[in-house]
Amino acid sequence: MLNDLMTIAGKSYRSRLLVGTGKYKDLEETRLAIEASGAEIVTVAVRRTNIGQNPGEPNLLDVITPDRYTILPNTAGCYTAEDAVRTCRLARELLDGHKLVKLEVLGDQKTLYPDMEETLKAMKTLVADGFDVMVYCNDDPIAAQKLEDMGACAIMPLGSLIGSGLGILNPHNIRIIMESAKIPVLVDAGVGTASDAAIAMEMGCEAVLMNTAIAAARDPILMASAMKKAIEAGREAYLAGRMPRKKYASASSPLDGLID
Amino acid sequence: MLNDLMTIAGKSYRSRLLVGTGKYKDLEETRLAIEASGAEIVTVAVRRTNIGQNPGEPNLLDVITPDRYTILPNTAGCYTAEDAVRTCRLARELLDGHKLVKLEVLGDQKTLYPDMEETLKAMKTLVADGFDVMVYCNDDPIAAQKLEDMGACAIMPLGSLIGSGLGILNPHNIRIIMESAKIPVLVDAGVGTASDAAIAMEMGCEAVLMNTAIAAARDPILMASAMKKAIEAGREAYLAGRMPRKKYASASSPLDGLID
Amino acid sequence: MLNDLMTIAGKSYRSRLLVGTGKYKDLEETRLAIEASGAEIVTVAVRRTNIGQNPGEPNLLDVITPDRYTILPNTAGCYTAEDAVRTCRLARELLDGHKLVKLEVLGDQKTLYPDMEETLKAMKTLVADGFDVMVYCNDDPIAAQKLEDMGACAIMPLGSLIGSGLGILNPHNIRIIMESAKIPVLVDAGVGTASDAAIAMEMGCEAVLMNTAIAAARDPILMASAMKKAIEAGREAYLAGRMPRKKYASASSPLDGLID
Amino acid sequence: MLNDLMTIAGKSYRSRLLVGTGKYKDLEETRLAIEASGAEIVTVAVRRTNIGQNPGEPNLLDVITPDRYTILPNTAGCYTAEDAVRTCRLARELLDGHKLVKLEVLGDQKTLYPDMEETLKAMKTLVADGFDVMVYCNDDPIAAQKLEDMGACAIMPLGSLIGSGLGILNPHNIRIIMESAKIPVLVDAGVGTASDAAIAMEMGCEAVLMNTAIAAARDPILMASAMKKAIEAGREAYLAGRMPRKKYASASSPLDGLID
Repeated sequence: MLNDLMTIAGKSYRSRLLVGTGKYKDLEETRLAIEASGAEIVTVAVRRTNIGQNPGEPNLLDVITPDRYTILPNTAGCYTAEDAVRTCRLARELLDGHKLVKLEVLGDQKTLYPDMEETLKAMKTLVADGFDVMVYCNDDPIAAQKLEDMGACAIMPLGSLIGSGLGILNPHNIRIIMESAKIPVLVDAGVGTASDAAIAMEMGCEAVLMNTAIAAARDPILMASAMKKAIEAGREAYLAGRMPRKKYASASSPLDGLID
Repeated sequence: MLNDLMTIAGKSYRSRLLVGTGKYKDLEETRLAIEASGAEIVTVAVRRTNIGQNPGEPNLLDVITPDRYTILPNTAGCYTAEDAVRTCRLARELLDGHKLVKLEVLGDQKTLYPDMEETLKAMKTLVADGFDVMVYCNDDPIAAQKLEDMGACAIMPLGSLIGSGLGILNPHNIRIIMESAKIPVLVDAGVGTASDAAIAMEMGCEAVLMNTAIAAARDPILMASAMKKAIEAGREAYLAGRMPRKKYASASSPLDGLID
Repeated sequence: MLNDLMTIAGKSYRSRLLVGTGKYKDLEETRLAIEASGAEIVTVAVRRTNIGQNPGEPNLLDVITPDRYTILPNTAGCYTAEDAVRTCRLARELLDGHKLVKLEVLGDQKTLYPDMEETLKAMKTLVADGFDVMVYCNDDPIAAQKLEDMGACAIMPLGSLIGSGLGILNPHNIRIIMESAKIPVLVDAGVGTASDAAIAMEMGCEAVLMNTAIAAARDPILMASAMKKAIEAGREAYLAGRMPRKKYASASSPLDGLID
Repeated sequence: MLNDLMTIAGKSYRSRLLVGTGKYKDLEETRLAIEASGAEIVTVAVRRTNIGQNPGEPNLLDVITPDRYTILPNTAGCYTAEDAVRTCRLARELLDGHKLVKLEVLGDQKTLYPDMEETLKAMKTLVADGFDVMVYCNDDPIAAQKLEDMGACAIMPLGSLIGSGLGILNPHNIRIIMESAKIPVLVDAGVGTASDAAIAMEMGCEAVLMNTAIAAARDPILMASAMKKAIEAGREAYLAGRMPRKKYASASSPLDGLID
């Protein structure tokens, strides 16, 4: 496993777990949970988190420092392409020209489902503007292909709705997206517990991004540790090649190639 | 997590992964995979494995040594209570009075499903005979209760058929068994990949026993490592208390308490 | 479909829906719901229903008359083999030598899961006593085979717990039972709504028995009609031979033969 | 059930099963299957079926006559908004000003997944052009809302990919779409067998559209009959109000409101 690295926008990472910073009790819990998760990429909602916009207030970057973590500014809370683009530009400024962003344009406040039409618009502008864009999207293989063609550096389909904890509701679509994609496919949103993360990795996803599953657990720091292990377990199981499924042990024909 | 120990028949263990020794390429692969799994309890099919019965031949116990591992002799290959009892007695003799055994009485060679009638009979004799009996059984809450009442030291319901790799097909029944049981409940049989093991632990099972999922993976040693991590991930997630499931993030009422 | 009859204990039936008589508001609702269901076999809990034991009270058989319906006395409420046998004998007496019974011996009042050990005991006595026994059992292929070998005229594994409405939780086991059985296999217990009944029939089950799914619906009579149609739909779909499952329309290899 | 009608674009229908005309052996089989299905709305792929474009050839409308059936021209085989619009206009001309169409713009020939960006574009033009548009779409609640806001007369999300027969892979999303929609929501694509259709109706969908599930069954005419009954069964079960799900019969709190 020594050489099993993930590469995104030209940089390599050992950890395949990306985490958010929202919903923690305080910055100390945020720091401890992120440390326990082993994450190397930490995503930050620029609209909700102070990374320098508000000079007098506590700055997340004092705790999650850019020398140790790759900071991934995201556009959570943006409902139009325009807002999302503006937010990315602000982040770039605050982070001294940092080009990597996570684009998300949401459709409404109730479901937090992505607005794919606006997402495609924002993507176009951001790529033209020189950003490296990881993009949150629905599990639509056609939209995923368009985003890749437009120059996304990673596709991040949802497993289920943000904050729902329902796991991967349609693994079939995620598989179809992975079949065609030549860039990394990460599951973003929907993971509720450790096995959900393992399942994503066993399917062959490059990595998983989560926030609520850790932050809203009863013990976030222990859950962060569980997620770290689950991601590694799922990745290793994927690489190890699972046993064939059979109706029973003595069945001659395996049941693989099936929907699962 | 320092003090999270599992106790079976009066002895405590740090690892919650029990492994078998069958289906490996050779004893060296067996040894390496078991080492990678971190297992402290190793189950041995007395009818198929030399643990001293055949003096001139390679002895598993030279590789999986009783000073390092708790050897758990099992009655795989027995189709009657009588055979199973005889096998346990042979094991006790070969292992110098060792009292811990795993009872399994199978119903047929096609499905390897347990014969619960014969299992109950064998249990009665073995308990009377002073054995500590961990017992492989179907996911029948009434039979599980009877086995506990008869003096089993652990109940081991199947997730799915031995060697099938289909995961836990009826988590509902396993949950009902756990609700009543006052002794450890382990999932035995059916695990196919890492997430299956994590799911068992997240449900609150005490531990998981597996063999084929590791031995029949393309890379058994890497899969053993995956399983070790998956078991720990599932256990930690269980202890950490997962986030509530919701229809969407802003939903007021969680969906927990549901069938999953 | 004219000739698609089901034969149980030498008698043929057009309807593949068997219904119970419990939990209705009154005898009139019972009558109307059973009529709407199109059932030809109606099962009666002898311990809870007056079929003549209490001469002065309303008699179910005045409403569900034996000339129109095959009355199937059952042993609901029996927790030992002895009680179940006694109940069958009482039913035979009350019904003028009627030999067809449905045996169920329950394990506890909480789950109503069958006690298979007692069920096997009762079966032995009842067969010796000349009864035609349809038997409620768990989804254990080995127990099912024993019951068939002992002379059952139909095997009736549960889909899920009585009164739970959770559908068929382990279709895999039901399929394994059907693979070996040479007598009719009916799903008994667990059906919650119309599609559950259709699924049982599509799997190739001979028929379905239900009570709560109809009686505890908001509108029992309309639900009875739904169930009649669902059973016919599932049976016809089974006979019509469903289309192959595919990853997508243009996929060359179908996904069938899979677990579903 | 006498008054349980579905209204689409101002016209009421008794049948909630819409069927296609593709993939049959010949026109006679098409006719018999559609008759057995009880469908009142029949969708026709204008690009593949002669409804008058090719004067000398067999015309589907001679068999499926517009006086008996509502003909629903669809744009299957169109990969751009432009093509889809052109096809709708051709259909209107061939059908003497008929305004009701089913819009589908596909993303690629491999998956036949809809291209939602092009679908939205075509929708805009078609509505401006006076068409009544039923629209095939993915299970994206935001896109569904946009289509409704633009003036669609029915939303038709996929259950799974066209021709896959995999059933409804993400009922959660379909439910979210139905929660907000004020126009009829029909499941279009993915149904494989009778129970899939019943499930869609039990969820509260207005109707189901299918083609391959009937045409590619071993016996299409019998499967058409199965589907007719399944749709009615599912609708009646929905209206009858199913029993609550429970862990076991004696459980005090039902499990409903859960994900299923």
